[in-house]
Amino acid sequence: MLHPYVQQALDAISSRPIENVFLVACGGSSALMYPSKYWLDREAKTIYSDLYSSNEFIHRNPATLGAKSLVILCSHSGNTPETAEAAKFARSKGALTVSLTHEPSSPLAEASEHVITYSYGPDAPAFETNYSIMYQLVTGLLYVKEENAKFHRFIQSLQSLQTVYDRAKSQFMDQAKAFGEANKDENIIYTIASGANFGVAYSFAICILMEMQWIHSHAIHAGEYFHGPFEILDKNVPVIQLLGLDETRPLEERVQTFNQQYGEKLITLDAKEFDLSEIADDLRGYIAPLVLNYVLRQFANELADARNHPLSTRRYMWKVAY
Amino acid sequence: MLHPYVQQALDAISSRPIENVFLVACGGSSALMYPSKYWLDREAKTIYSDLYSSNEFIHRNPATLGAKSLVILCSHSGNTPETAEAAKFARSKGALTVSLTHEPSSPLAEASEHVITYSYGPDAPAFETNYSIMYQLVTGLLYVKEENAKFHRFIQSLQSLQTVYDRAKSQFMDQAKAFGEANKDENIIYTIASGANFGVAYSFAICILMEMQWIHSHAIHAGEYFHGPFEILDKNVPVIQLLGLDETRPLEERVQTFNQQYGEKLITLDAKEFDLSEIADDLRGYIAPLVLNYVLRQFANELADARNHPLSTRRYMWKVAY
Repeated sequence: MLHPYVQQALDAISSRPIENVFLVACGGSSALMYPSKYWLDREAKTIYSDLYSSNEFIHRNPATLGAKSLVILCSHSGNTPETAEAAKFARSKGALTVSLTHEPSSPLAEASEHVITYSYGPDAPAFETNYSIMYQLVTGLLYVKEENAKFHRFIQSLQSLQTVYDRAKSQFMDQAKAFGEANKDENIIYTIASGANFGVAYSFAICILMEMQWIHSHAIHAGEYFHGPFEILDKNVPVIQLLGLDETRPLEERVQTFNQQYGEKLITLDAKEFDLSEIADDLRGYIAPLVLNYVLRQFANELADARNHPLSTRRYMWKVAY
Repeated sequence: MLHPYVQQALDAISSRPIENVFLVACGGSSALMYPSKYWLDREAKTIYSDLYSSNEFIHRNPATLGAKSLVILCSHSGNTPETAEAAKFARSKGALTVSLTHEPSSPLAEASEHVITYSYGPDAPAFETNYSIMYQLVTGLLYVKEENAKFHRFIQSLQSLQTVYDRAKSQFMDQAKAFGEANKDENIIYTIASGANFGVAYSFAICILMEMQWIHSHAIHAGEYFHGPFEILDKNVPVIQLLGLDETRPLEERVQTFNQQYGEKLITLDAKEFDLSEIADDLRGYIAPLVLNYVLRQFANELADARNHPLSTRRYMWKVAY
């Protein structure tokens, strides 16, 4: 049932003691690990976890990194130099390294003990894509180490992800188009979320808006909003509000309630509107960010079309030395 | 030598097993804990740590929170409802709670087992202020639990903080004034840092710029910069670049080198320019963020003056329901 490479990694994991996990990647690959950190925090009884941008991880050099550590890394191309270097660094400390990438023959794949190649693109089955593979790995980790009772249902839920994605995509087509049209002239758009959903807000801010659309942005944590950021809000400030289904939803709802009173340019994406029939009730909070992310990709496509600024346009990335 | 309330908290800490530490606060009070997280990551061999915004901590409900946990909380007024609630929540799980506040009779103080009142204001001795108290507590923690060899030198260094602050303040007076004048008409200013300095960049972005000046902002992690955010840079985008003295300085320098080539509105604050004679060589990376923060407060004052927008002006905070 599991992706075969995930199974191989879990076999390796079960044969050695694991005290802590480091989730290590950059940018969008890091953002897709945030739901896994949320899962580990809520469910792991004996295993500690931390999430770091690859080069921060290397230079920070955590004292607990060692032979009882599992380091999970991710780079889509496998070419991210900092992440490949982080894998080498982790191995030099005796840690077990498992990497996710789309490219099985890449620097990251070569630097890691275990490599899980994920599928990508419009025809890739959702079960085999990056977010799903991450969850298979970290729910599997807690199954082999702590006999976590949610594991089998989690995998079953992930197997319905494609159905859920397809339905959500057609459901939000019109909203995505309206979003693109309404926001094509904005020069700043904030995103707000908490809990398992924060990584989705983060990647939309830094990868879609800043990187691919050259629109100023900042992913604000809903729990931090009223301790500074909210003073920026007025009727001209666009905010994308994510409402998930996890335990932190009250934080997101509180922001939404405030913004409905003092803001005007509010774009709300509420996971309660998704049909998640195939997903186990108590796992919907974990799956919601994946669907939010999938739907937001449509929002990005429509924004790019309305602005006549393709998502593939870059001025520095892959073009100049940095 | 230690602040007496810190000593009392350490006495309580030493009498029970501690497996993990949660650093829990909101906004600026959370930001001032980031250097402590950096310290714990680099130095703690047996104690794990996590840092969460107060309400995220409560709703996330980490599975490892329990009788072997130490929860350190902070709220300046002690009135932050989420933080007082987090203290109650932590105690209900059996954790040991230690709170930092300026107000000894406040909801947070009442909710916590141990309270450390810190000094505040222009005449407060630096050793007794919030950043210093946090460091006394977490370096003390590693001393009583792991006999950390840097502890005594760390405390000695903190005792020279006032001297360092005073010198830095007069040294950067002119630069602060020039910053205020040059940036008074900007509507967005980014901040960038990594490692022990990231919290300083974060609090300047959300507390000074967004909250107190209504200027759009976003603290970008230097290690994430080239994985999305840097595409936003052009000659019209102002960036405050912090350069610290810790092990992650190469990340900050890499951003600086790039920005010097493609940007024009660069404001650089380099801790190498500070005179840190009284601070032990191997602890300067930990102390630098405190000095960066102190100097940046002068920058904030000058910006507020140049914009005729006092730092105390609010439209929502303490004024409307939220």
